[in-house]
Amino acid sequence: MSKSGHTGADAPFDSSDTARSAAPLPHARTFTFSEPLPLEHGYVLNDVVVLYETYGKLNDRRDNAILICHALSGDSHVARHDAADAPGWWDLVIGPGNAIDTDRFFVVCPNVLGGCRGTTGPNSINAATGARYAGDFPIVTIADTVEVQRRLLDHLGIETLCAVVGGSMGGAQAMDWATRYPDRVGSTVLIASAARLSSQALAFDVVARNAITRDPCFHGGDYYEHPHGPTVGLALARMLGHITYLSREAMTAKFDPGRLAPRKVVTDFESRFSVGAYLAYQGEKFVERFDANSYLTLSMMLDLFDLGASTEELERSLRPATCRWLVVSFASDWLFTPQQSREIVQALVREGKSVSSCEVPANAGHDAFLLEEGISVYGDLLRGFLAGPEAVRQGAEPGRPHATATDRRLDQDAILRLIPDGSSILDLGCGDGELLARCSAARPARRLGVELDVTSTIAAVARGVDVIHHNLNHSLELFRDRQFDVVVLSQALQCVDDTARILDDVTRIGRRAIVSFPNFAHRRLREIFAREGRLPKTPGPFGYDWFNTPNRRFPSIIDVQELCAARGIEIVDAIYIDREQSVRITEDPNLNATEAVFVLEKPFA
Amino acid sequence: MSKSGHTGADAPFDSSDTARSAAPLPHARTFTFSEPLPLEHGYVLNDVVVLYETYGKLNDRRDNAILICHALSGDSHVARHDAADAPGWWDLVIGPGNAIDTDRFFVVCPNVLGGCRGTTGPNSINAATGARYAGDFPIVTIADTVEVQRRLLDHLGIETLCAVVGGSMGGAQAMDWATRYPDRVGSTVLIASAARLSSQALAFDVVARNAITRDPCFHGGDYYEHPHGPTVGLALARMLGHITYLSREAMTAKFDPGRLAPRKVVTDFESRFSVGAYLAYQGEKFVERFDANSYLTLSMMLDLFDLGASTEELERSLRPATCRWLVVSFASDWLFTPQQSREIVQALVREGKSVSSCEVPANAGHDAFLLEEGISVYGDLLRGFLAGPEAVRQGAEPGRPHATATDRRLDQDAILRLIPDGSSILDLGCGDGELLARCSAARPARRLGVELDVTSTIAAVARGVDVIHHNLNHSLELFRDRQFDVVVLSQALQCVDDTARILDDVTRIGRRAIVSFPNFAHRRLREIFAREGRLPKTPGPFGYDWFNTPNRRFPSIIDVQELCAARGIEIVDAIYIDREQSVRITEDPNLNATEAVFVLEKPFA
Repeated sequence: MSKSGHTGADAPFDSSDTARSAAPLPHARTFTFSEPLPLEHGYVLNDVVVLYETYGKLNDRRDNAILICHALSGDSHVARHDAADAPGWWDLVIGPGNAIDTDRFFVVCPNVLGGCRGTTGPNSINAATGARYAGDFPIVTIADTVEVQRRLLDHLGIETLCAVVGGSMGGAQAMDWATRYPDRVGSTVLIASAARLSSQALAFDVVARNAITRDPCFHGGDYYEHPHGPTVGLALARMLGHITYLSREAMTAKFDPGRLAPRKVVTDFESRFSVGAYLAYQGEKFVERFDANSYLTLSMMLDLFDLGASTEELERSLRPATCRWLVVSFASDWLFTPQQSREIVQALVREGKSVSSCEVPANAGHDAFLLEEGISVYGDLLRGFLAGPEAVRQGAEPGRPHATATDRRLDQDAILRLIPDGSSILDLGCGDGELLARCSAARPARRLGVELDVTSTIAAVARGVDVIHHNLNHSLELFRDRQFDVVVLSQALQCVDDTARILDDVTRIGRRAIVSFPNFAHRRLREIFAREGRLPKTPGPFGYDWFNTPNRRFPSIIDVQELCAARGIEIVDAIYIDREQSVRITEDPNLNATEAVFVLEKPFA
Repeated sequence: MSKSGHTGADAPFDSSDTARSAAPLPHARTFTFSEPLPLEHGYVLNDVVVLYETYGKLNDRRDNAILICHALSGDSHVARHDAADAPGWWDLVIGPGNAIDTDRFFVVCPNVLGGCRGTTGPNSINAATGARYAGDFPIVTIADTVEVQRRLLDHLGIETLCAVVGGSMGGAQAMDWATRYPDRVGSTVLIASAARLSSQALAFDVVARNAITRDPCFHGGDYYEHPHGPTVGLALARMLGHITYLSREAMTAKFDPGRLAPRKVVTDFESRFSVGAYLAYQGEKFVERFDANSYLTLSMMLDLFDLGASTEELERSLRPATCRWLVVSFASDWLFTPQQSREIVQALVREGKSVSSCEVPANAGHDAFLLEEGISVYGDLLRGFLAGPEAVRQGAEPGRPHATATDRRLDQDAILRLIPDGSSILDLGCGDGELLARCSAARPARRLGVELDVTSTIAAVARGVDVIHHNLNHSLELFRDRQFDVVVLSQALQCVDDTARILDDVTRIGRRAIVSFPNFAHRRLREIFAREGRLPKTPGPFGYDWFNTPNRRFPSIIDVQELCAARGIEIVDAIYIDREQSVRITEDPNLNATEAVFVLEKPFA
């Protein structure tokens, strides 16, 4: 894409341009559009400036660019540029050798439209009046800021993005990019994001905005010429924000010891309690670096972002996207909840997109996005994801072995032979993705795994397999009827609570299902039970006892046959194996087989 | 107790006494103490007035009084007095025939100290100055308000309370009563309470107070003579409160449909979003009926309430109490969490108190305390609890039958014979409390049940049994080592995930444990398995199949014997039964018994 229409000038950023801004950003640059910017909600901004920072080098093919979209109170300074530079907000992720490796990628991070760190916002001069926009700054949306970013990328000569990456409000921008410019986005990474805020999160934003707008020093937003702005309201808003960024558990751990022994803070806010002193400090610090009008503008931008109230609307919103997706959430995040990420994942899966997901077991809450606790997990995931589907590496190091990895390996051969070439495949309980990786010859048909273990999920993503981090005991509504040619449930049937439901699901989602399971009525188990009166252990080398096996159910072959019959599920093929003898069994399999592989189909009702 | 020292006068309440108060309370009365009130934090209040309402009649024995302690923004008007009266805040619970039956009980509900509805508070006239206390009103604590209540009860001639009942902040008062005046309290009911606020809840209160105190119209609390008080700050505080009273799920259900179609509200607050209009309405309405100084006073009263940071401190705080306890929480309450109620229950149990508990599966959040959703469950519990331990009714209607009720009944005889007279008993998985009720001859030794099912819990409480609503798969740290003579685990061993842990626990908590379980290696099951190759079903008439049984483990007798040996647990006695033949088995029980009853002991290490 050419720079046509964008004849503005590059200039170093001068922090004196912005009122109430924070430290200067010596590595930042600005670009001014000569072309007016019509806004989604009906106003036209002229002379729009965008401030941005870049890291690494754009390669000759211009295909190694990653756009970082920052969150509400973030800015362009995503990482330090050198040892002398001020710390960035994502130093742990971005840099040479990091998950987003600036030796490999060209990273661009612009300050959002409406912010107060250099890109046009309420504290910018409106050329038409010669005064700051202040209270006249219009409503701007995620789409408007994405348009600014698009123009910047055009200016930089970046036609396609290797990835768009965003956390929190940055995730909203990333989703907008992926759906608005599908041809320009290779992959999208969402971290602690949502397709729309929960009403609870919205409620906190409303209270925060009321605290600002009802501060008598707000003056309808026209406070720049007054000696004091709405600093109390802004500090209250920030205090409230900080409560929502931390999980209750993290707050307890941080503030309950010494609850009445707060750190000394010079403040007019209450500091009797430890947590109060912390909030006072955060509030006071924030007003020094952030502008209240920008806070209002950006929180409204976030609140108005809405990909749909219903499953159907969300699916429709995401439909245009063609990129790969990685969706990360944090277990203890109650502001942008794992459930909200699951809703995005569900819509993507149902729309047939290439998607991986992970719910990181972090305690810090929403803040885990920026903390070592979260990054130590999702950093590896991100690294593997960005390596791309080209990274199918047979020799890739697997993660911690899945409980039944060995078993799975051994019956994979039988399963693979049952899968027609070119079939789309869903592997439920995919471990580190080995079976799916072995199916790679059959590409480009869709292959997707579902896995409960985080380490296995990361390993699967690292070998180029799409994998949804999900518990098979939870609903599989994220898959459409007949969405895959083949659904594989290998050595996992016995670990699921509701056997009837999972059999219904695999035959609903797949045209066929291939289900392998140990036969607990195998001759040797019967003999032990009859002779010794001990409950049979799972066949296989796992060493579990009756009181600690992860197996939840203990089916025999005829048990499963009868359950299938009762559910109207047809067993169209069956392979019976004696693993110890390495032979196929044809005679009385319920007695002689150690395991069975069933091919199942459920006729349409 | 005489009225000595309290020669103040009763007088009808005149609402004009209080600035910024709400509707008059025609049934309320006031009482003025002539004796000064020294406060916990070191100030003396004179001429303290307490406003209160009563319902029902004090009986001749003066032993049917129930004290209701209200929450932060509540008042004395707990229920309507007649059809013409304004609704009370707990009409669903208090009244003729209700859970707190005013045909039976004499209900007293005073307005708290520091409030704004008639009891002395910041908007009261300080006789020493002739002006309102305003910003000079001192810090008052839960203990101070309990002292006011005590004086009122003395005045009313009530020596002992049948019960003290409080929800939220009311629960703090109830706990103070129970521990400060153990001789005067027969039972204590806590609903959605905590021994201290979480740091998260504290943080919300801090922000709310900052919103009030930093409102320029606050004037250090001396705003009564100004045309405007800190109404914006108070409204913000109330908005914030309302967010915390609702669960996220309830907010979603209430405000997500029509998120951008708010109800029309006349307000200067933001009302663009449905949830915002609701908060604006709640905020505006609140400032009409509540005084900002009272809000500050009472939220600080709540924040300072603290029965201890550690388990040990909490146990020490609750140690003086001698009453019966009922502790109710709501699953979706994130302000006063079920975990916080569990901590109270744990301390009470470990201190050997008589306590029942229930985590009500309500979705509404903290608000469930006041809503039909919560009351429909805890109302029955409260009714049964207030009927008292005298209500051991063999013929009492049991609740929904527990899954293994029949089984339990049948092996109860064997178990009962193994329990020495006068033993203290803990029954894990007690169902509707039948076994414990059958042990009633052995009173007054301690008897306590643990049950997962809510309906069974309510039924057990109704028959006079103490029961903790708890999942046996969760930690049993709430019990001390050797806390009971006998721990019973009847037909529940096979339903617990971690068999080794539960065996360790029962032999840690009890001097002896009596554990009954089905023998899955019984002859008939072996025969079926050997012959038919079907997994054995549980013996008994439950009709579960292999794929839906609630049983988690399938032990044989020798399996359990071996596991006990491996854990250093001694089987000091064993009874083997063939249920179908109704005979005791002595020969090869692992083959011939359908179930076993083990008496277990673990020698001290």
